[in-house]
Amino acid sequence: MEYSTFGRHVAVDAWGVDFDLLNSAEYLQAQMVEAAEACGATVMSVQSKQFEPQGATVLVLLSESHLSIHTYPERGFAAIDCYTCGETVDPQLAIDYLVSVLKPEKTYAKKLVRGLGELQVETPEMQPIELV
Amino acid sequence: MEYSTFGRHVAVDAWGVDFDLLNSAEYLQAQMVEAAEACGATVMSVQSKQFEPQGATVLVLLSESHLSIHTYPERGFAAIDCYTCGETVDPQLAIDYLVSVLKPEKTYAKKLVRGLGELQVETPEMQPIELV
Repeated sequence: MEYSTFGRHVAVDAWGVDFDLLNSAEYLQAQMVEAAEACGATVMSVQSKQFEPQGATVLVLLSESHLSIHTYPERGFAAIDCYTCGETVDPQLAIDYLVSVLKPEKTYAKKLVRGLGELQVETPEMQPIELV
Repeated sequence: MEYSTFGRHVAVDAWGVDFDLLNSAEYLQAQMVEAAEACGATVMSVQSKQFEPQGATVLVLLSESHLSIHTYPERGFAAIDCYTCGETVDPQLAIDYLVSVLKPEKTYAKKLVRGLGELQVETPEMQPIELV
């Protein structure tokens, strides 16, 4: 059986995020699993690392590719990626979930369309943050 | 202590790779660890998954971010990413190592410069394949 190589990869740099949210690998891991489920992806396994004096990385292996976060809590910065293969799972939904949880003041994002030849680069619309 | 958020993220779609090279998570894992070392990164942990009937994913957690591969052996296709933070580790060296091992017929690549504000997108020069 052959599968489509088509995939979408959203890369987001998030700024102005609360230190404590970014400095807990355990918290981020739970949110990343929720994010994967939010876009309909299937989590196969998770790796995470709490860095000292601060910072965290979580890598989620999906049956549809991966979801990653790297944080610099002291700069309020997180670099987030969600890459999913196939038509049925939209990585933007996982990104939107994480943005709604982390509530960055500012995001910069690019979307790569992969697996079709030359990589296409788009600038995705990010969901506006609801300030409560 | 504060760290620079500056990072370079190289995303490569590789085509025309041998089925057997792409269909062994164990082989790819060993090559990914070599690739990380080739660019001077530090491997913290590794996740891998052998899919059925074919296909593999390897995610390497680096102290400087991550290295990933997703393969579709039946299409000769691999999607490779290397994202490294900081000035001292160049992700292109890890990518060049993997290309030299996998020997794709064709590659398409984009480089994202991250952690500085708007993501900058460049098209990196890929090392020519030595056809022996």
